[in-house]
Amino acid sequence: MVQIAVMGYGVVGSGVVEVLTTHTDHIAKRAKEEIGIKYILDLREFPDSPFADKFTKSFDDIINDPEVRVVVEVMGGLHPAFEYSMRCMEAGKSVVTSNKELVATKGAELLKVAQEKNVNFLFEASVGGGIPIIRPISQCLAANDVIEIAGILNGTTNFILTKMIHDSMDFQDALALAQKLGYAERNPAADVEGADACRKICILASLAFGRHVYPEQVHTEGITNISLADVEYAEQWGGVVKLIGRVKQMESGKLQIIVCPMFIPRESQLANVDDVFNGIMVRGDSTGDVVFYGKGAGKLPTASAVVADVIDCVKHFKARKYLFWGEGSPDYVEDYLDDKVSMYVRAHTDNEALALGNANHLLGKINHLTRKNAPAGEIAFVTETMPERAIVEKLKKLSELGVTIENTIRIGEL
Amino acid sequence: MVQIAVMGYGVVGSGVVEVLTTHTDHIAKRAKEEIGIKYILDLREFPDSPFADKFTKSFDDIINDPEVRVVVEVMGGLHPAFEYSMRCMEAGKSVVTSNKELVATKGAELLKVAQEKNVNFLFEASVGGGIPIIRPISQCLAANDVIEIAGILNGTTNFILTKMIHDSMDFQDALALAQKLGYAERNPAADVEGADACRKICILASLAFGRHVYPEQVHTEGITNISLADVEYAEQWGGVVKLIGRVKQMESGKLQIIVCPMFIPRESQLANVDDVFNGIMVRGDSTGDVVFYGKGAGKLPTASAVVADVIDCVKHFKARKYLFWGEGSPDYVEDYLDDKVSMYVRAHTDNEALALGNANHLLGKINHLTRKNAPAGEIAFVTETMPERAIVEKLKKLSELGVTIENTIRIGEL
Repeated sequence: MVQIAVMGYGVVGSGVVEVLTTHTDHIAKRAKEEIGIKYILDLREFPDSPFADKFTKSFDDIINDPEVRVVVEVMGGLHPAFEYSMRCMEAGKSVVTSNKELVATKGAELLKVAQEKNVNFLFEASVGGGIPIIRPISQCLAANDVIEIAGILNGTTNFILTKMIHDSMDFQDALALAQKLGYAERNPAADVEGADACRKICILASLAFGRHVYPEQVHTEGITNISLADVEYAEQWGGVVKLIGRVKQMESGKLQIIVCPMFIPRESQLANVDDVFNGIMVRGDSTGDVVFYGKGAGKLPTASAVVADVIDCVKHFKARKYLFWGEGSPDYVEDYLDDKVSMYVRAHTDNEALALGNANHLLGKINHLTRKNAPAGEIAFVTETMPERAIVEKLKKLSELGVTIENTIRIGEL
Repeated sequence: MVQIAVMGYGVVGSGVVEVLTTHTDHIAKRAKEEIGIKYILDLREFPDSPFADKFTKSFDDIINDPEVRVVVEVMGGLHPAFEYSMRCMEAGKSVVTSNKELVATKGAELLKVAQEKNVNFLFEASVGGGIPIIRPISQCLAANDVIEIAGILNGTTNFILTKMIHDSMDFQDALALAQKLGYAERNPAADVEGADACRKICILASLAFGRHVYPEQVHTEGITNISLADVEYAEQWGGVVKLIGRVKQMESGKLQIIVCPMFIPRESQLANVDDVFNGIMVRGDSTGDVVFYGKGAGKLPTASAVVADVIDCVKHFKARKYLFWGEGSPDYVEDYLDDKVSMYVRAHTDNEALALGNANHLLGKINHLTRKNAPAGEIAFVTETMPERAIVEKLKKLSELGVTIENTIRIGEL
């Protein structure tokens, strides 16, 4: 019997306890040992819980108990999750987490201590909920060079965009529906402004390319500026608007990495990833494109990924799982303005013909888009591919010529 | 330095050698050891190969060399692949294979010897080529009960069906094109008659549900009877025709397993898996649906999956990877005629109204399908859901009433 502790009894924590207690035999068979929950750490009271005798408010109970060999960190937030995780590993306990903020911000430090102490630090559930992605990248694709990763990494924003695309709901109504259905928090900022997707692409990038990418290094845009007009233009262009996290390694070794809405072609395997689902494309030099698809969040999917990591810890007390990346550096990420991109532009003008002529003159051969019932003076087009810095400059010139730029969205040839 | 041997220098074998020699440093880093190729076994001569000094025609060189700790079996076919693999494991060497016939037919026996000898028998490349699927099922989904697996498991037939669906090519022309492009063999039987997909679903079913399912236990139909008429009716029904391998566990513990063309709804994540791509859906009780997508075959994708297994062997000489299933039994698989199904039927009659009335009378409330330019006397419909045996009997009665049944295709609500 291996004893574990669960820190945090929120949605994921209670799910972990549920999965461990409802699949006991099945899990014991896979882990080749029974797994018992010795402590559940939470500051709240759960007097009616069937696990009431396991609750503690004191982290010391866990850290001082040599019987506890694996600690599940599902508290969320950076503090005290970081300090607790560090102390557990320093005390020789393996740590499993679903906390993407923790891994995206402190991953390199935590992995270093795991290596030094010869324990495991596993975090399959931090990206893609129940979709296996950390393991496939680190193991199955071990014989590949990963060239690029791109994905729909946030279910809440994908639900909102799906409602905008398929039901012509506007952003505010779709957000309200997502909140009503429990897909979005009352304060939805972390989702709709892209921070959640940013953390996930940081984790994937760090793992795939071997050095830590920090969230503040990633240019991040959310979906709050997306209008139904943009959705209609995307359709006329031949695709859909999706919030994409994307990373590529350049020949110099630096990374191009960004989180932003993109127009992606209808034929892309990511275009049909709808509702709260996630889809992650990993491009390897040998495998070509491999796509992983499933529910990226939710109590049981996430909990089952955590438990799978716990099983892996129990099976690998002797042979530590090799999951590692080193520290990053400020110059590891290319300035996104230097990336080459083609851009969709929606603007307002008093003279459409003149504005389009100027756009064509400034931005190369533009692809003019139209939509039914567009208000007078609205124009939209897609530029040629060029460094984003050049597009920004040229759009500035265009606005000096009396054209009001209302939105820009990058084209993602995925 | 760990020494390995590669048995078979065909498409996959030469790919394995290529991946190992072009990614040497990367692989050594992942495996924490350098991996050297000591022997390549092939009866043919490759005097101009840069690896000419490694070739041998004698299996004895490999089996008698204690330095060789991992043997890659990529010869294909059952014999001598089975005997060689057995002898390698009995001699304490781990075996990695991409040979689906070997695993589907002899998996339980081989896994038993692997367990007894405490060596690895790994076969990620046997299903889905470069798509990670064996590992995710066995590890990431360890904390789930798998409920169902369904997939497009054969790229050749999927290419042919895609050409029929999108370009209205008929079967023979699409097959000829597949052969021209190198996607289909000159003798395409194993692909188009479903045997290849059958082997793969057997492997997935054995792994997910823990007991061996043998190919001869699986009712298997290929795509040779699919006509453009069926493709058009599928579209009117609201979906596409795909060759699906599918397995579900029943409450009794028995399996429902089948390989056959199915109508699947347009909204299904498998409906957009086109060309030579594979897509595999794994339904878990906690994770919900997870879909894996990518190129299911090809030299480098398959080779990179083989090499990933080699790396895993090298990392786990001490802690053997737990991949196991037991022997099956003749009564482990339910008779497919007892499975409940809804069926598309295309038929010919001299009296359409009478035939449809009879069909409605016999088969419950049918869903009548039509298509443009249907020849006179052609009818098509979808039955209600009932045991397949009942459908077969009722269609027999219908044909006794003067209706010629031309094709039937199961409805797959995936």
